[in-house]
Amino acid sequence: MMSKQFAERTLKATEAGIADAFAVSDNADLISFAGGFPDAGLFPNAEMGDAFKEAFGNTQNLLQYHGDHGYQPLREQLAQRLSNDGTPTQPDDIILTQGAQQAIDLVARMLINPGDGLVVEAPTYFGALGAFDNYDPTYYEIPMQADGMDMHALRKALMAHSFKLIYTIPDFQNPTGVVMSLAKRQELLRLAREYNVVVLEDSPYRWLRFTGEQLPTLRALDTDDRVISLGSFSKILAPGLRLGWASGGQKWIAAIAALKNGADLESPFMTMVAVSNYLAHNDLDAHLAKLRAVYQAKKDAMVRVLHQELPAGFSADDPQGGFFVWLTAPAGVDMGVLLKDEILPQDHIAYIPSKNLYPSKRVVNAARLNFTGEDAATIRTGIARLSAALARATQPTVTAALS
Amino acid sequence: MMSKQFAERTLKATEAGIADAFAVSDNADLISFAGGFPDAGLFPNAEMGDAFKEAFGNTQNLLQYHGDHGYQPLREQLAQRLSNDGTPTQPDDIILTQGAQQAIDLVARMLINPGDGLVVEAPTYFGALGAFDNYDPTYYEIPMQADGMDMHALRKALMAHSFKLIYTIPDFQNPTGVVMSLAKRQELLRLAREYNVVVLEDSPYRWLRFTGEQLPTLRALDTDDRVISLGSFSKILAPGLRLGWASGGQKWIAAIAALKNGADLESPFMTMVAVSNYLAHNDLDAHLAKLRAVYQAKKDAMVRVLHQELPAGFSADDPQGGFFVWLTAPAGVDMGVLLKDEILPQDHIAYIPSKNLYPSKRVVNAARLNFTGEDAATIRTGIARLSAALARATQPTVTAALS
Repeated sequence: MMSKQFAERTLKATEAGIADAFAVSDNADLISFAGGFPDAGLFPNAEMGDAFKEAFGNTQNLLQYHGDHGYQPLREQLAQRLSNDGTPTQPDDIILTQGAQQAIDLVARMLINPGDGLVVEAPTYFGALGAFDNYDPTYYEIPMQADGMDMHALRKALMAHSFKLIYTIPDFQNPTGVVMSLAKRQELLRLAREYNVVVLEDSPYRWLRFTGEQLPTLRALDTDDRVISLGSFSKILAPGLRLGWASGGQKWIAAIAALKNGADLESPFMTMVAVSNYLAHNDLDAHLAKLRAVYQAKKDAMVRVLHQELPAGFSADDPQGGFFVWLTAPAGVDMGVLLKDEILPQDHIAYIPSKNLYPSKRVVNAARLNFTGEDAATIRTGIARLSAALARATQPTVTAALS
Repeated sequence: MMSKQFAERTLKATEAGIADAFAVSDNADLISFAGGFPDAGLFPNAEMGDAFKEAFGNTQNLLQYHGDHGYQPLREQLAQRLSNDGTPTQPDDIILTQGAQQAIDLVARMLINPGDGLVVEAPTYFGALGAFDNYDPTYYEIPMQADGMDMHALRKALMAHSFKLIYTIPDFQNPTGVVMSLAKRQELLRLAREYNVVVLEDSPYRWLRFTGEQLPTLRALDTDDRVISLGSFSKILAPGLRLGWASGGQKWIAAIAALKNGADLESPFMTMVAVSNYLAHNDLDAHLAKLRAVYQAKKDAMVRVLHQELPAGFSADDPQGGFFVWLTAPAGVDMGVLLKDEILPQDHIAYIPSKNLYPSKRVVNAARLNFTGEDAATIRTGIARLSAALARATQPTVTAALS
């Protein structure tokens, strides 16, 4: 029971249950496919330790306030990398943030007056909803299809309502793993121009493609500075760095910087220096190739067991990259209720039920499964156990039918 | 000219000019009393480098997500320190944040619906206004006196309007340097109880007292969980760590944690581990004693020259601790206009004009001078130059009078 002293957004936040995604049971048997945890065995601990040591050894005013948009050499390195990826970027087009999560919060803060229209994919990243909720938008959910957002539904929504912002994860979408097709990327931008809407492209998984051809970013296709792109070191180096970025036109970056002052003054200079040192002395592309190989093998392990063991009526997608497999249950099966009542307490398996991934909470028969956090053997064990639990819970036994 | 695409709060933020406080001119002669910069020569660089090295050497999952309220051993060390300072605190009463700045933002986010009443001291910390502005409060300014907020004015305001929150900096207030008396601390809490208002006690300077007796914190005097206290390592270790904390009743801390999830998921675990290591191996009290000695000498240097050189009609306070001296000019002198038109471009001196320190912008004839960032010799040179500039700008010469 919340006190009336709290603001309304606080009630939403305490109900939103982002923390639940990272909840672990005390049971040592728990196998969690819930959080978006990278494989900690792949973190470059020693190299990053050296990078911090170098930072402390020879950086003037390392621990002082610095202000501005973040350590200039790191913004130069990032600009080069984004440009090489096909999105021409200058260092001044970038601001460094506390993970991409803070950038989502700041972009919403920059644009959303209470009640303003906000398009989200349905389902979408629940952490983005946790940020957006603070600014009281009017959500419009656009269904996801196998090649990205339903553009007919988007056009209809844009014709019928007024919007400030479209939030999309075009590469290996969280939670569905879907990649938006080139045709839909182009159509999305046409619509955004026609209806004068800003596009927030959240792309933490882009450089984790296992198979298939990379497509241009929305910002690469943008012709009139209406796309703000987000990236993060969380999935490609380590989340504990808490370092991400927003890139886009300088009018956006300047406003985000002004709002970041009020939010936390600035990001830690020492971390930005250390990550810059890491990038100077290590081959990030080689590191990414290693991540892709390990994560593809884990994804293959998960999808193979799912396709073998899932009971009739269930299906699972096979993504080309990213962190997540999308599991769909037969209509009428509430994966959230199943999780809470049976699968977590009895089977010690965790996942994110689809209900939390729609602002409207309207879809209950699906779930997000993360395949990066656990090792391949554990994934096989866990998915077999989950499949058996789903069979038990949803297929009445002969005994039950006769009783 | 802001685009109509921006939210209203963005206009406020880009006008608020927090960034200006840290602005430096390109002139090598510039002496800045503007920012609240600690003396970088006092940062424990080597010790902190060792603390990071230790963290990288032997901490499991150092770079993984961890969630929760921050590294438990550090919360234990902080709880012990706060308890020793007379404010009984459990580790679970604490959440670690991106500096105290983020804690201000999150407390406002937790409590303030648009239009809700918010009491601030007048003048106050402009960074707090930069955070509060995002949540669209109705500000009520309570004038500062030599012993803290004017309690008669506070009582009148509480009788006349409805309030959610009182924001106060009771120890070495930013910007006035004032310490709230014990009688006023008690009266403030009586009023807060009577009118059911939450109190946000922002105390980054508390452990930097040069002279006089320490008074109990508001949270130590609190009897019904209505005070949330903020602290920071920025002024006592180094701001580049970006590490602060909120402490208070667990209903507040839990709500702040939920909102922090949406803001940036969590603070960097590696930094919390490193600061915990630092505290385990170093004597923070000895470090604080060194800071106090150095800062007192700088403060003495600044106040001595001010008292010798300021022209007639100007006055400067002599604070017992903290980071700032408050300078008052004769009525009618606009210290902001003087800064912009003459003192910054001609005399290469920077300070924070009082106008930015009132939500109403109603007081223009005062300024905040920081004494910690520059060395004592530079302070003497700068204050002599500032005094001469103020004399030149405000006392018409005989020539001018005759012309």
